[in-house]
Amino acid sequence: MSDAQRLNAVIRAHAPAAAARMSDLGQRIWFPKGVPAQAADARNCAINATIGQLTNGHGGAVPLSTLARHVQQMPDEEVFFYAPQGGHKGLRTAWRNRIKSRGPTRASLPLATNGLTHGLSLVADLFVDPDTEVLLPVPCWGNYRLIFGVRRQGLLRPYSVISDGGFDIESLRTALSRCTGPAVLVLNFPSNPVGYTPTLEEADAIVEVIEQAPVPLVVLCDDAYHGMVWEDGLLPDSLFHRLSQSDPARVLAVKVDGATKELFFFGGRVGFVTMGVEGPAASALEEKLLGLARSSISTVATPSQNLVLHTLEDPDTPARIAKLLAGIEARYKRLKAGLIAQNVPHLPFNSGFFALVKVARPVEEVRQALLADGVGVVSAPDAGAVRVSYASVADDDIDTLVDALARHAR
Amino acid sequence: MSDAQRLNAVIRAHAPAAAARMSDLGQRIWFPKGVPAQAADARNCAINATIGQLTNGHGGAVPLSTLARHVQQMPDEEVFFYAPQGGHKGLRTAWRNRIKSRGPTRASLPLATNGLTHGLSLVADLFVDPDTEVLLPVPCWGNYRLIFGVRRQGLLRPYSVISDGGFDIESLRTALSRCTGPAVLVLNFPSNPVGYTPTLEEADAIVEVIEQAPVPLVVLCDDAYHGMVWEDGLLPDSLFHRLSQSDPARVLAVKVDGATKELFFFGGRVGFVTMGVEGPAASALEEKLLGLARSSISTVATPSQNLVLHTLEDPDTPARIAKLLAGIEARYKRLKAGLIAQNVPHLPFNSGFFALVKVARPVEEVRQALLADGVGVVSAPDAGAVRVSYASVADDDIDTLVDALARHAR
Repeated sequence: MSDAQRLNAVIRAHAPAAAARMSDLGQRIWFPKGVPAQAADARNCAINATIGQLTNGHGGAVPLSTLARHVQQMPDEEVFFYAPQGGHKGLRTAWRNRIKSRGPTRASLPLATNGLTHGLSLVADLFVDPDTEVLLPVPCWGNYRLIFGVRRQGLLRPYSVISDGGFDIESLRTALSRCTGPAVLVLNFPSNPVGYTPTLEEADAIVEVIEQAPVPLVVLCDDAYHGMVWEDGLLPDSLFHRLSQSDPARVLAVKVDGATKELFFFGGRVGFVTMGVEGPAASALEEKLLGLARSSISTVATPSQNLVLHTLEDPDTPARIAKLLAGIEARYKRLKAGLIAQNVPHLPFNSGFFALVKVARPVEEVRQALLADGVGVVSAPDAGAVRVSYASVADDDIDTLVDALARHAR
Repeated sequence: MSDAQRLNAVIRAHAPAAAARMSDLGQRIWFPKGVPAQAADARNCAINATIGQLTNGHGGAVPLSTLARHVQQMPDEEVFFYAPQGGHKGLRTAWRNRIKSRGPTRASLPLATNGLTHGLSLVADLFVDPDTEVLLPVPCWGNYRLIFGVRRQGLLRPYSVISDGGFDIESLRTALSRCTGPAVLVLNFPSNPVGYTPTLEEADAIVEVIEQAPVPLVVLCDDAYHGMVWEDGLLPDSLFHRLSQSDPARVLAVKVDGATKELFFFGGRVGFVTMGVEGPAASALEEKLLGLARSSISTVATPSQNLVLHTLEDPDTPARIAKLLAGIEARYKRLKAGLIAQNVPHLPFNSGFFALVKVARPVEEVRQALLADGVGVVSAPDAGAVRVSYASVADDDIDTLVDALARHAR
């Protein structure tokens, strides 16, 4: 019996009027015991490497100082009043300028969303039907399956992110060649949970494969971890920039990103959806997104939007971001050196917040054993690995973390 | 050509790959020029009575002081970290206690939502399919049609809220008698846009009609304006309390409410969905809602949740709420006295933020004429009326507002 069936049986027995009127989606849905549940398991661990947020490793926040200083000085109107549909105009413009400053790009006015999940869900509303082929990276963030599969009933087609030593371009080429109609391709670099960003050569190959696909594509760039690239020679920016300039008959590029990771404002829930078009198509697609947002959440929290806007306007922000990124990079280097020194098997990783450590025993068994040792990680069964969020582990705990992984992973 | 068709034509012409992959929902959706657009029209009006939020009437916020004082003293962890799925446990418990303190009720642990719209949308996800009959009050908030109709494709069945002098019980009885299968009934008291709350006798009749309905019902109580009742002898609380104790084979009561209006935190986007069940059905339905929230927004903004929690925990809050309510009530009394004195035709109103003023000319024409006079209102064409939000008009401007309505409405 599936989780959903189990819930449906309880509801039939104890709330028959509810069961009588449950929708198809209502009958399909359940709450997967994914990252949030495993993070809750690790609440009391000395080392909690479960969740993708920056902490001091001891339960404390590491805020962006240019954001934190505005929290104490918010005028009432920037806290209490409704925000406009689609988001604060100044904020949307500032985010668009931020995207365009990185290089030639076609970009609609970004629509503010309640975090990146809401952006992904709106894009799924707009482009995914029960018969739509949705190409998802594997391994991927579990919530993709809930959004594109369970909620929107897309036909999920996996492609492998990583082969020996690099991006698995052949897997992507094969997956695209099998599409039977216009499809949605999800790209996620730096990737969650792999922590991988393509090299410049790999990025060229990805664009080439996309532009030669046999069907028109909506290419969704999930850029949650934008800018968190820890090695030279890697794609420094989103593929959105190049794909927005592809033939509009073949490709629509869509960018989902936000302040969640880029400004380290995990609790703020400020994300954006930007379409790789300008002119009339941008206005029309924006109006579609406005209707979808109006009918799902109406607006995004006003205090969060104003905090993000002030932070973007603050000339000190780039330097402060660079400082926090340097801190994460130091943890990355220490973890990577430790894994190599102790010969702990892991998938290639070079960016983002995560590493995947391969385990020789059942993944859930290893996760439980690590929990018993006071180390919280997330299981990635589709990679035969555990996901380690080094961004939430104190520098001084990284060596202890590596020791624990070495003990349990092999 | 409908608005959606117009957008689809533009997208076909300028972004053909997007058009090729647009979903059915994507093709249906557009952004209705409803309250938000009409509020934007009235941005520069001296009297802006468009939007349902409390202001000082001159563009300034009137915050709840027990909420405002916490804004300046938020610890970093209460701003920057992710909140748990479903909401902060302490907040959910506090909200449940608040509901239960009002009288005997069966109530699940409330799920935190991004404002009330998100709560309504999750309930629609759970209980509305393309063949579901959804009984909506008329006149009603326009977003109901977008959520239940355009997004979820329910069969919308109107029932009239108001007849001469009171609640139109016969319209509700007739609408229920015509249901062909388990249906969803939406109740909204105090109502938007009518500003009507049933008398105690009318409330008894509504419960009786619901319990004698020929089909099992999900009864959704939209309690956005809870507690804003300005006359004696009216239902002081939600019908949710009584309906939660109905036979579970006949009725599932669902309550959607939140801090938006109850704590005057319009920009916070903290709403709740509570099911009128306890025990195993409550857990199962909560898990369904968790999955729906996870796949639509993940979590609600952390700073907003913590502000609401601190406000609920503050012993001064009830007295401070009473003070703000008294201010709105004074505006209500002044408006009502003015409309009666100048013989301006209006629908019965006794609660909430709004009054409907009947107009003798086309509604849009009257709205434009009022705009030209520096008075912003919202058109309610299904009632042949304009909606006046007196909560956002300064006391001293109420008489001027009445004069303008008297000039243009007749």
